[in-house]
Amino acid sequence: MTPDEIEALTFDVFGTVVDWRGGILRDGAAVSAKHGLSVDWGRVADAWRGRYQPLLSDVREGRRPWVVLDQLHREGLDQVLAQFGIAGLDAATREEFVRVWHRLDPWPDVIPGLDRLRRRYILATLSNGGVRLTVNMAKRAGLPWDAVLGAEVAQAYKPSPETSARLLDLPPARCLMVAAHYSDLVAAREQGFRTCYVWRREEWGTGEKNDLPADPGLDLVVEDFAELADRLGV
Amino acid sequence: MTPDEIEALTFDVFGTVVDWRGGILRDGAAVSAKHGLSVDWGRVADAWRGRYQPLLSDVREGRRPWVVLDQLHREGLDQVLAQFGIAGLDAATREEFVRVWHRLDPWPDVIPGLDRLRRRYILATLSNGGVRLTVNMAKRAGLPWDAVLGAEVAQAYKPSPETSARLLDLPPARCLMVAAHYSDLVAAREQGFRTCYVWRREEWGTGEKNDLPADPGLDLVVEDFAELADRLGV
Repeated sequence: MTPDEIEALTFDVFGTVVDWRGGILRDGAAVSAKHGLSVDWGRVADAWRGRYQPLLSDVREGRRPWVVLDQLHREGLDQVLAQFGIAGLDAATREEFVRVWHRLDPWPDVIPGLDRLRRRYILATLSNGGVRLTVNMAKRAGLPWDAVLGAEVAQAYKPSPETSARLLDLPPARCLMVAAHYSDLVAAREQGFRTCYVWRREEWGTGEKNDLPADPGLDLVVEDFAELADRLGV
Repeated sequence: MTPDEIEALTFDVFGTVVDWRGGILRDGAAVSAKHGLSVDWGRVADAWRGRYQPLLSDVREGRRPWVVLDQLHREGLDQVLAQFGIAGLDAATREEFVRVWHRLDPWPDVIPGLDRLRRRYILATLSNGGVRLTVNMAKRAGLPWDAVLGAEVAQAYKPSPETSARLLDLPPARCLMVAAHYSDLVAAREQGFRTCYVWRREEWGTGEKNDLPADPGLDLVVEDFAELADRLGV
């Protein structure tokens, strides 16, 4: 793959662009302080994120009709609060906390990296997050997306890469999917996308990731968006 | 309507945000010079734009399946070139000229106005133009859209306002539709949107518009985006 074969970069968002775990810890600490709770928000964050795939699967496999991700986040939070025996959060507090996913911060390299990449490429989100979530996050953080695509626009989890390529009027091979999750890239590669894995070693707060096989068969593997911009020569 | 009742502004694009007629004249002059043609591009522009509604109606009323606007622009151009007896433009030139709709310039007040409005409101396009067209136009001109919605995302001409409100997770009454065409605003009002008419007296190159009735029943009527920002207090 050469840089001029690519016209658009499509980005997974949670974990790849923004630090969901750090955001939950940050807002969780504020909730603890306000309500006088002692909570291990790291465990809550991991459990909440862990509810993600099972809830998505119910929609993906047709056991329930389409709902936007906010609703799945809401149900996941209720399950996790019950699991950890965290009581005393009123409905308004829980609803506000669900929207922490709209308020996540990008990793430090993201904004400078995207500002380089946007000069040459169309930058689109291809996330399970809804349009409003992605717009709110972008306005708050200054993420310079050219288009917000993904699950809600395609009405499908995982957002269909080919729907996004069609909306961008591009053959899939002109699109580079960027994600910190190998499974996202395998799915995109099956649709003919080019693929870039980004190490986000702190996604789970551990300093390590272990989802990338020794011979991943991807077009690029980069440490962060600065290296991605370097590799694409922008 | 007060400014704080509104959370998102949804914009018609052709005529409201960008000067389609001026763009066709500009690129038409370049085609004339290159190919040694004498063409009244103003008449071509008006006739091409005039082909718009009949071609859209074929899709809207189910006489043909969904196609993206580029295809309708292509067919309209071929019809207009035949109508005016303009021969000698090869396929590559015609294809390049069809994409003039991706290269239209905003009216002079647009960028400064949007830069004020974006501080407080979500700015979304709600256009018949496709996603790629709208993205190309925005990147070229620096239009700071938060989301590209409209016909292709909704898979319907005229883009359904309620689809856009749903994607923005807003009741229609929290959305202000901004258009230089009264009929667009009547349609949006029927969906519960707030409405703002923008005089674009040069849309047809005549210095005047005549589609606004004496008692239009709209929330705002403004001269340009500077006045819109003034009226919304941003």
